Amino acid sequence: MVELSNRSAVEPFHAMDVLAEATRRRDAGHPVISMAVGQPAHPAPKAALDAARKALQHGRLGYTDALGTLSLRTAIAQYYQKRHGIALEPQRIAVTTGSSAGFNLAFLALFDPGDCVAIARPGYPAYRNILAALGLTVVEVEANAESGFTLTPENLARAAAKIGRPLKGVLLASPANPTGTVTGRAGLKALADYCRAENIAFISDEIYHGLTFAGEEASALEVTDDVFVINSFSKYYCMTGWRIGWMVLPEKQVRGFERIAQSLYISPPELSQIAAEAALGAQAELDGYKAAYAANREMLLKRLPEIGFTIASPMDGAFYAYADVSRFTNDSMAFARRMLAEINVAATPGFDFDPLEGHRTMRFSYAGSTGDMAEAMDRIARWIA
Amino acid sequence: MVELSNRSAVEPFHAMDVLAEATRRRDAGHPVISMAVGQPAHPAPKAALDAARKALQHGRLGYTDALGTLSLRTAIAQYYQKRHGIALEPQRIAVTTGSSAGFNLAFLALFDPGDCVAIARPGYPAYRNILAALGLTVVEVEANAESGFTLTPENLARAAAKIGRPLKGVLLASPANPTGTVTGRAGLKALADYCRAENIAFISDEIYHGLTFAGEEASALEVTDDVFVINSFSKYYCMTGWRIGWMVLPEKQVRGFERIAQSLYISPPELSQIAAEAALGAQAELDGYKAAYAANREMLLKRLPEIGFTIASPMDGAFYAYADVSRFTNDSMAFARRMLAEINVAATPGFDFDPLEGHRTMRFSYAGSTGDMAEAMDRIARWIA
Repeated sequence: MVELSNRSAVEPFHAMDVLAEATRRRDAGHPVISMAVGQPAHPAPKAALDAARKALQHGRLGYTDALGTLSLRTAIAQYYQKRHGIALEPQRIAVTTGSSAGFNLAFLALFDPGDCVAIARPGYPAYRNILAALGLTVVEVEANAESGFTLTPENLARAAAKIGRPLKGVLLASPANPTGTVTGRAGLKALADYCRAENIAFISDEIYHGLTFAGEEASALEVTDDVFVINSFSKYYCMTGWRIGWMVLPEKQVRGFERIAQSLYISPPELSQIAAEAALGAQAELDGYKAAYAANREMLLKRLPEIGFTIASPMDGAFYAYADVSRFTNDSMAFARRMLAEINVAATPGFDFDPLEGHRTMRFSYAGSTGDMAEAMDRIARWIA
Repeated sequence: MVELSNRSAVEPFHAMDVLAEATRRRDAGHPVISMAVGQPAHPAPKAALDAARKALQHGRLGYTDALGTLSLRTAIAQYYQKRHGIALEPQRIAVTTGSSAGFNLAFLALFDPGDCVAIARPGYPAYRNILAALGLTVVEVEANAESGFTLTPENLARAAAKIGRPLKGVLLASPANPTGTVTGRAGLKALADYCRAENIAFISDEIYHGLTFAGEEASALEVTDDVFVINSFSKYYCMTGWRIGWMVLPEKQVRGFERIAQSLYISPPELSQIAAEAALGAQAELDGYKAAYAANREMLLKRLPEIGFTIASPMDGAFYAYADVSRFTNDSMAFARRMLAEINVAATPGFDFDPLEGHRTMRFSYAGSTGDMAEAMDRIARWIA
């Protein structure tokens, strides 16, 4: 039997393993509450479901242009006008099969094997895993209290000096997963300026836009055109299962991305494109969901410390609480497994987000219903006691 | 502004460029008939549309397990029992976001940069383009009349000898795009035995299964367990726009694929998984569509030679006619552009499938309606005359 490749030896995405185990337990009849993945409890907006239903009447869903339908690209361009006051040509929008496709495309289009790409630690594990699978050198930059839990020209310069090689890419998420850090306009501007001066590709992950509870939610496009923005309908728009997202690209580089997307993805799912376009108009409904997350957030900010889990980072945006659980364990993986097995609460071991210090942290997604979140806190409190 | 990576310099997927141009012309009011991409004229089966509609009632569509829902994996395993008499554990099935994700996953999981992977020339361009983007060495093996238009131990051994390096992978499609070649059980067995003896990963692309008009449609799983099978709901099941497919993997290698899929794709679209499961039971409806393709095929087998386009390969399966147009042009790209601009018929220049000899060939997809196909042939006949 043939062996797997060396590059296939990437870490698992542990949150997905927890999700799989939670699904197995739920299917077996256990009353599982999942705080493991960033999965909104709410369905897609009503307008999106209606648009999908309408398209199912004829049912002819086919390949679209590789970068998406002109109609959706135009609607997304209008969103930037309305929300950020930025005029964009629809041609600069690339619709993708979730932000997952956006990251993969950006890494392939921008970097060659061995290139150094900086990401924050703690950070989203798929960044690290995709970069590694594509033969890129992951430079994890500690985003701690000193740097405001974000990437800065200073900590990037220090990281580059330490490895003795230039960075080719910087990837920043704001709001960030798992820390909830929101990097404001000034911070984005400083990063964009630094990247431009150093000839570094700046990738701005804005998939949690719309879910900022404190601080200033700015798009990197407000401070530069020389950025690769990645966004998604999964989180604010409650459309995880539809696998639909987008990128905004510098005009001159659209064609290079398109060439790769044609062969790697053919096109994003058409029904999801139709539904996504309708979702853009559903802000009132979605802001209602956001208010529910805000209530969950307040509850976790109070209850997690009471339980003895110290909130480890800002929690200003996205829908995660990143907590220090070192009072109870220094093996977050085993802790997560026991918590699921003993009290049917699924959460993600910090090891996913931080290979160095994640053994003593856990991430709790609060995208579920407020009732479920409260019940999960009750179960954990009793369990810990 | 940063430059794109060296590996982003892959060829465009020209068929997708033709599709984009055809869409632009159609949107501008031109009566375009597309024979450019493998896009069935029919909607997804009624049962699939019904299942999707039902799921939209609650609308809660989320991440599934990275390798798909157990329900769909089980249904696909049953399909192999029913159709091929093969017993498979559902755990060996990996649901993917179209076969596109399957190819990308297989290439990442099985090969390291520089490894040599053999494909047939002419062949599906995305193979070549994805392999190149991932830093793999594409070994194009001429599949001509002498070898029955397929890969054989003989032409593979010759190709390996010529490059002076061992092959790490062999990828065979049956039925094949664009040639329509169907490789029967004996041919698959010979390839599987050769690959096992030479420690080569054997990837069997079976996405056109269900669309065999002449010859024997066998799965590579009938002759070996040591194969990576890729299949899709796009073609026989008329679900291109749903982006849903699957792989069958050797049991020991499932986890390696899963690790990569977790980070690269999170999960396949849930609504598509629900619809796909229902589509598996729609054989009667789908065989009706197949009969329509058979009629189209008969018409093209007659009319293309009358026009002066010589059928260049078997046309035993899939829904493509691969034709030699060298009586009229030695620049198939320009020929395709003129045909679209002057008579609104879109077809794909052979250059997509064969970098060496594709300048004198064209591929015509006959997955459209019989009326459209007849009208396209009329237009071409008048235009050529």
